[in-house]
Amino acid sequence: MSRRILLTIEYDGTNYSGWQIQKNGPSIQEEIEKALFRLEKRPVRVTGAGRTDAGVHALGQRAHFDTQSNIPVEKYPFALNALLPYDISVSNAAEAPLSLNARFSALSKLYTYRIYNRAQRSALKERFFCHVPLELDIIKMREAAAIIEGEHDFTAFSSSGGTHKSPVRTIYSIDLTKNEYDITLRVSGSGFLYNMVRIIAGTIIETGCGKITKSAIERAFLTGDRRLLGATAPAKGLELTSVFYSEKDLILK
Amino acid sequence: MSRRILLTIEYDGTNYSGWQIQKNGPSIQEEIEKALFRLEKRPVRVTGAGRTDAGVHALGQRAHFDTQSNIPVEKYPFALNALLPYDISVSNAAEAPLSLNARFSALSKLYTYRIYNRAQRSALKERFFCHVPLELDIIKMREAAAIIEGEHDFTAFSSSGGTHKSPVRTIYSIDLTKNEYDITLRVSGSGFLYNMVRIIAGTIIETGCGKITKSAIERAFLTGDRRLLGATAPAKGLELTSVFYSEKDLILK
Repeated sequence: MSRRILLTIEYDGTNYSGWQIQKNGPSIQEEIEKALFRLEKRPVRVTGAGRTDAGVHALGQRAHFDTQSNIPVEKYPFALNALLPYDISVSNAAEAPLSLNARFSALSKLYTYRIYNRAQRSALKERFFCHVPLELDIIKMREAAAIIEGEHDFTAFSSSGGTHKSPVRTIYSIDLTKNEYDITLRVSGSGFLYNMVRIIAGTIIETGCGKITKSAIERAFLTGDRRLLGATAPAKGLELTSVFYSEKDLILK
Repeated sequence: MSRRILLTIEYDGTNYSGWQIQKNGPSIQEEIEKALFRLEKRPVRVTGAGRTDAGVHALGQRAHFDTQSNIPVEKYPFALNALLPYDISVSNAAEAPLSLNARFSALSKLYTYRIYNRAQRSALKERFFCHVPLELDIIKMREAAAIIEGEHDFTAFSSSGGTHKSPVRTIYSIDLTKNEYDITLRVSGSGFLYNMVRIIAGTIIETGCGKITKSAIERAFLTGDRRLLGATAPAKGLELTSVFYSEKDLILK
């Protein structure tokens, strides 16, 4: 009998070309599938909840796969962590209904974007933070975040290359916290267009240093004009923190 | 006229053979001296406060050097950060009296040791944490810490290879904090023998999982027997957090 397993996956994306398998460069998906192949002795295809870009990290990426093996589900994290490279780990495995799809069943996702806001750069923050040497006005940043929250046509907030049909998404909340030199953005939404979180982060950063006004953001929503917004913020500051599913979709029948 | 400059240096030690210049492998000191050579156009020797081992990190390493240049002191962090590799940065530079020696004037040092205490390892914690899969009893760990605090002959807590004359040191405090899976040790002391913080960390960890008793630690102090204590904990969990000087030693005359 086939079982569907839902994994929670953590990775330092620095040395990867992104989640998705591709010809040129190592991917997280490929490493997971290689480890599963060694464990299951047959090719296994995994479906990730979101296709993180090159250099993007994850604390709570999710992915599902099907297995005919009788490996107890709670053994998967240990068995996979012994086979995976050090910058990828599996923090949880759970059996899920065959109807659950890690990508299409996802109700919402939470991303974290980390900024180190100080004139000098920091060696210890290099890997997981975007360094912004210019002074940032947190009040202005929160005002920009408030405009972006809600249901909108996010065309202006996406790079070409996405495969989505409708550009309408809902951002449930963008929380900004400041702790000494660290500014953390937590962006929760129903779904995200290609590069959307990084364009949101870049736009909030450029509002914070006075390069972009609130009315420019409002105009971008009306016109869909990408050029009114901030540059796409660097991948290394971004982490896919959690993917949420409906409780009822996770219940085994 | 010669000025003495005191730098505060941050580094991710993962890719280095340690602070001190050596023949086989890259060192932090060498990178700093290379950057200073490019800036000052003459060889510059820096003196670090502590010789961190291969793989050990720093948030607040200190080092001094002398210069005849007229570069304003506040420009050094920017100038050096533009020349240093990404895993080393200078967070501060200040002029200090010629009598100040970064190493011999240090009154005390604060080290941080980070433990990730969970059955599964974590990809995101890989670089800066020591993974301990066994369950740790924080109460027992705090009891071990309390025994180690104070003035003692720390012979049992040092590896051969040190160059110190007296093995007596004072540990002012060892604070343990626990936050979900993270256990953080903050060790403050007057000075440290070779590998002393890592042996303290290893001993506290092994007390936490029941391998070492409090009375074994007490016996180690009396006998100087290294074998009674825990293994030297991995370098990657250790960070030299701060080096403290007397305010009066820092005042320019």
